[in-house]
Amino acid sequence: MKQTHGGDWAGFLEQYGARPLDFSANVSPLGLPEGVRAAAVRALDRAALYPDPRCRTLRRSLAAFYKVPAENIVCGNGAADLIYRLCRLLRPRRALVTTPGFTEYERALESVDCSVSRFALSESEGFRLSAGDFARAVTEGTELVFLCNPHNPTGLLLSKAELTLILDACRAAGAVPVLDECFMDFVPEPAAYSMVGALASRPELIVLKAFTKTYGMAGLRLGYALCGDGDLAERLRQGDQPWPVSLIAQEAGIAALEESSYADTLRSLIGRERDTLRRGLEGLGLRVIPGGANFLLFYTEDAALCEKLRDRGILLRDCGQMPGLRAGWLRTAVRTPEENAALLKAIGEVLERG
Amino acid sequence: MKQTHGGDWAGFLEQYGARPLDFSANVSPLGLPEGVRAAAVRALDRAALYPDPRCRTLRRSLAAFYKVPAENIVCGNGAADLIYRLCRLLRPRRALVTTPGFTEYERALESVDCSVSRFALSESEGFRLSAGDFARAVTEGTELVFLCNPHNPTGLLLSKAELTLILDACRAAGAVPVLDECFMDFVPEPAAYSMVGALASRPELIVLKAFTKTYGMAGLRLGYALCGDGDLAERLRQGDQPWPVSLIAQEAGIAALEESSYADTLRSLIGRERDTLRRGLEGLGLRVIPGGANFLLFYTEDAALCEKLRDRGILLRDCGQMPGLRAGWLRTAVRTPEENAALLKAIGEVLERG
Repeated sequence: MKQTHGGDWAGFLEQYGARPLDFSANVSPLGLPEGVRAAAVRALDRAALYPDPRCRTLRRSLAAFYKVPAENIVCGNGAADLIYRLCRLLRPRRALVTTPGFTEYERALESVDCSVSRFALSESEGFRLSAGDFARAVTEGTELVFLCNPHNPTGLLLSKAELTLILDACRAAGAVPVLDECFMDFVPEPAAYSMVGALASRPELIVLKAFTKTYGMAGLRLGYALCGDGDLAERLRQGDQPWPVSLIAQEAGIAALEESSYADTLRSLIGRERDTLRRGLEGLGLRVIPGGANFLLFYTEDAALCEKLRDRGILLRDCGQMPGLRAGWLRTAVRTPEENAALLKAIGEVLERG
Repeated sequence: MKQTHGGDWAGFLEQYGARPLDFSANVSPLGLPEGVRAAAVRALDRAALYPDPRCRTLRRSLAAFYKVPAENIVCGNGAADLIYRLCRLLRPRRALVTTPGFTEYERALESVDCSVSRFALSESEGFRLSAGDFARAVTEGTELVFLCNPHNPTGLLLSKAELTLILDACRAAGAVPVLDECFMDFVPEPAAYSMVGALASRPELIVLKAFTKTYGMAGLRLGYALCGDGDLAERLRQGDQPWPVSLIAQEAGIAALEESSYADTLRSLIGRERDTLRRGLEGLGLRVIPGGANFLLFYTEDAALCEKLRDRGILLRDCGQMPGLRAGWLRTAVRTPEENAALLKAIGEVLERG
């Protein structure tokens, strides 16, 4: 199995016998909030119980948090689980994704024999997505559209106005728009970009989110879909095994939604550090895409940079094999000041030595 | 969504505002072993990491435990996850199950539009499965067979000789036999019934198991498939989202396999208590199927018994709506002496009052 994602500390551990400093996975560098950890530990006292198959309490918490009816919310074993369940439920014959883009969209679509159209983001235009061009690519016969905002791996943001244009095109074509907002909590002003508020007037819209990145919960597996249509949500809830979300993850998620100061601290930390890291990379002569998420995409002429950093115990996400990106494009997470400084120092040393 | 399984403490909690004494889920009454709990708590320190997508260390532990190559092992988000993944991967056009039987087999098969043949177990014969008759039902065109040993919900056991007859019929018909041994650890002499040893000589065989019941880990979600064919196992590992098993579940599973004294204590406790509970139920004039698992199927003329016990805070699994069983058939887990005594007392009182 090819490792197609970041975060493979286990593969690194097998190879080097040690854990890496991991910039290849885009999770909160602050780790699990203390309150979430405590809730998870308490939940272990009830580990012998089956999880609530319907995630009732968690969905009520999410409903209050987002002002979206609990009936319209579906929880999953990470957002990836919901991407696959959506594809299996809707069985689109033709779908639209961007290249580059999160590769699981395409993998999930292909698992149901969907014909996938790729909307290419051009390197010469800095991978900026033109909403008008993308909207025109949503043609009659497009049944599903996956779009990530902020985009992965570029980190670039689409405004509400741009997204409205795209959502209108989806409506006209009869396509289901799936907006992946998994990295939205790291954006300086999420309210200016998130389309969660549009769910009430757009029954066809589905917004994906996860606890994974924001609350350092990748290892617990918890994502969710906010659906414009409650009936679709119910079919999505029923379209799988009865217990997709562990009891621990449900309790951790309920506790995480209480962690407003953690989320605020994280957002301002990432905001500051994203700027610092970007300037640092540019200072080393690297081209950096000015993304607004908790990661940055950059280009290096040194084709072996990723491998050399790996030998120094630092993992980056090599995007060179990703459709739509050539060798040299790397993605790095934005982490703590100390970690980012260590990364910049290591990159500087590697580039200097050639 | 209809609640089609036991263990719905959450639904009970919504209705009554309290937790039930739950005999409807067949999990270890001893709860999570202390060593497993400690491993899970330690694993929370690394909750920000993505789980190892390939479950490398856990599979190595399972490989040592079962003397089955790690390549032939697939871990899942509970055994239910693997049932669905198997159906999606193999896409059988025709499959054979028993009625009564674990209803997820049929649900998973129907999710891939499989035509399901039901082999009826007859109440008048005490639901005994005739291996010869079942083997003859595995006809040309049967592509997959689900069979649970010990059987759920009857608890009845098939011997290795009986299973060999059935597996030979599967081989002759070209059917994939999926043997669900999720309750095997509760059987007095698992070695006399488990077909794990046959995997080396039967590449088509798949044995399903779970940590859920044996180690009180239902809330953590961890099951696995032992496959005769390593290539099939690899396709099964790749046929889903990249991170189906949480990091916590992987670490808990690794620790659970060390808990040999817990497993021994549990097996002898369940053995004693199964006999006591069975005699107690029979003493109340109830017909009990002499199962060998950690649950018992019994019949009552009082159609409202289950509901009346529910009002007293006791949950049983009402099997009356299950295909192949009529109203009055109930399943109860075998739990601790105190809990089983409380159950017998409550049933006695309800039956006496009429």
